[in-house]
Amino acid sequence: MRISDLGEFELIKRFKKKIRTNSSVVEGSGDDCAVLKFDKNSYQLLTCDMIVEGVDFYKTDNLRLVGAKALGISISDISACGGVPKHAVVSLGLPKNMLVSQVDLLARGLFDMAGRFDINVVGGDISASGKLVIDVSLLGEVEKNNLCLRRGAKTGDIIMVTGEFGGSIKGKHLKFTPRLKEARFLVNNFKINSMIDVSDGLVQDLGHILKQSLVGAVLYESLIPLSKQAKNSQDALCSGEEFELLFTATREEASKIIKSTKYRFKVIGEIMPESFGLRLINYKNRYSRFKLKGYQHF
Amino acid sequence: MRISDLGEFELIKRFKKKIRTNSSVVEGSGDDCAVLKFDKNSYQLLTCDMIVEGVDFYKTDNLRLVGAKALGISISDISACGGVPKHAVVSLGLPKNMLVSQVDLLARGLFDMAGRFDINVVGGDISASGKLVIDVSLLGEVEKNNLCLRRGAKTGDIIMVTGEFGGSIKGKHLKFTPRLKEARFLVNNFKINSMIDVSDGLVQDLGHILKQSLVGAVLYESLIPLSKQAKNSQDALCSGEEFELLFTATREEASKIIKSTKYRFKVIGEIMPESFGLRLINYKNRYSRFKLKGYQHF
Repeated sequence: MRISDLGEFELIKRFKKKIRTNSSVVEGSGDDCAVLKFDKNSYQLLTCDMIVEGVDFYKTDNLRLVGAKALGISISDISACGGVPKHAVVSLGLPKNMLVSQVDLLARGLFDMAGRFDINVVGGDISASGKLVIDVSLLGEVEKNNLCLRRGAKTGDIIMVTGEFGGSIKGKHLKFTPRLKEARFLVNNFKINSMIDVSDGLVQDLGHILKQSLVGAVLYESLIPLSKQAKNSQDALCSGEEFELLFTATREEASKIIKSTKYRFKVIGEIMPESFGLRLINYKNRYSRFKLKGYQHF
Repeated sequence: MRISDLGEFELIKRFKKKIRTNSSVVEGSGDDCAVLKFDKNSYQLLTCDMIVEGVDFYKTDNLRLVGAKALGISISDISACGGVPKHAVVSLGLPKNMLVSQVDLLARGLFDMAGRFDINVVGGDISASGKLVIDVSLLGEVEKNNLCLRRGAKTGDIIMVTGEFGGSIKGKHLKFTPRLKEARFLVNNFKINSMIDVSDGLVQDLGHILKQSLVGAVLYESLIPLSKQAKNSQDALCSGEEFELLFTATREEASKIIKSTKYRFKVIGEIMPESFGLRLINYKNRYSRFKLKGYQHF
């Protein structure tokens, strides 16, 4: 059997079965970040993200944007857990015939992004590679009571998002701003029950919350904020690499969040009991149970 | 200009110039690990290492050994700083047509190595990739007074090593045991002035210590421990990926270390003033100044 027959998520499951961790690990593989014991008041967060030429970006893309993206993805993961990024290490697989000026562009994008978010790039590794590969590991911190996981959603919670969705492949996937400020505003001022960043697609990532929280949900098609690049709401529901936040909070908290005017958060649905499954109320005001596919590498 | 014209070390220098870190970073890029402030008594260590099919291993290699190597390299780095490895995240770039059984082998090697050294694998990322790529980031801890860096060597220090050198490419590079126990024995019982792991070649890695400590050295060709696979002492001096430890301590400490019988450490030379440069005393008892090349990716 080939891994393409198995699919990405089955493959990840296969790995996770093998994992044994000790009591210093609060939350291992299975959320946006690993959560590690740190000090009395806070946890440490650790995440890694690899991007590969020809898969996550193309040779012809501006490498400054690619460098920024490589770090931005991990900042988005730390944000989704409610934390603050601190230190990064960067592994680069570089084609031998790559121009030094191209490497400089890549580094500039990466270091600019690090500067914007006060991240120390503290080390790295360089290897030769046929295709350009960039892997960033990012260490962060989160106050214990600010930690957000995928498994905290509760029936009756309101589902909200930052930003707009759809057509990320047309450019946003290389130009997004990780929603760190928004995430910190949320966790510092409200009780957020669950949070995830939308990297595989809105429905697929909401699916992770539902599965881990043992709940269902209803989404309102008419409420999904569409970007200019979105073809339609179907696209907005499936588009990967949006790097927006999707989060849930009680109705009471949600109404406070909506009233706060510092950032724009939009309601898109509600958490339901598990037996309800995941349903969409479409423009004709009709329910449809659905399984939409988001992005899978295999 | 292509990066192959520049060479690996010039490329790394180019990156390091761009790095700005804040006061929470005790030691950034430039040692085996980054050293981060942690608590009253200890530092945190962070390192990453990427291995690529066709460069660091071949398709025909046993993937169980490849998985073990991917993590072993980073354990060796944490050891060289005197610390203890704790948590790892693993990014995998996998060819779509890879067999599931091959991925299982890779995972088994990696998790077995993690188990042997009490390391929690706490997360990861999977991407599609033309060639197999494995990047491991490893977080560790070290007591403040046990931290070993490259820059602590002092004139008069004795230079010592673990193990034997030469011909690693014939198999050891896939089957080495990271010298964690030996490193912890050393830092817990003796004052080690500087330490590095031999990944690029004995002379080249000693060169890192000399450069960062602003000292010179003399090596005795007849003292270099040769492995069975070593072609000759020249090979032993240049062979990369040996993953043995090279360290320095005062003459007094060195004699205590030699007398200790728990592990075998061998004297290979002495630290000299910077102006002395790096010289080898060959089998004919003659000095030769030399510049031997170790491994460079570009």
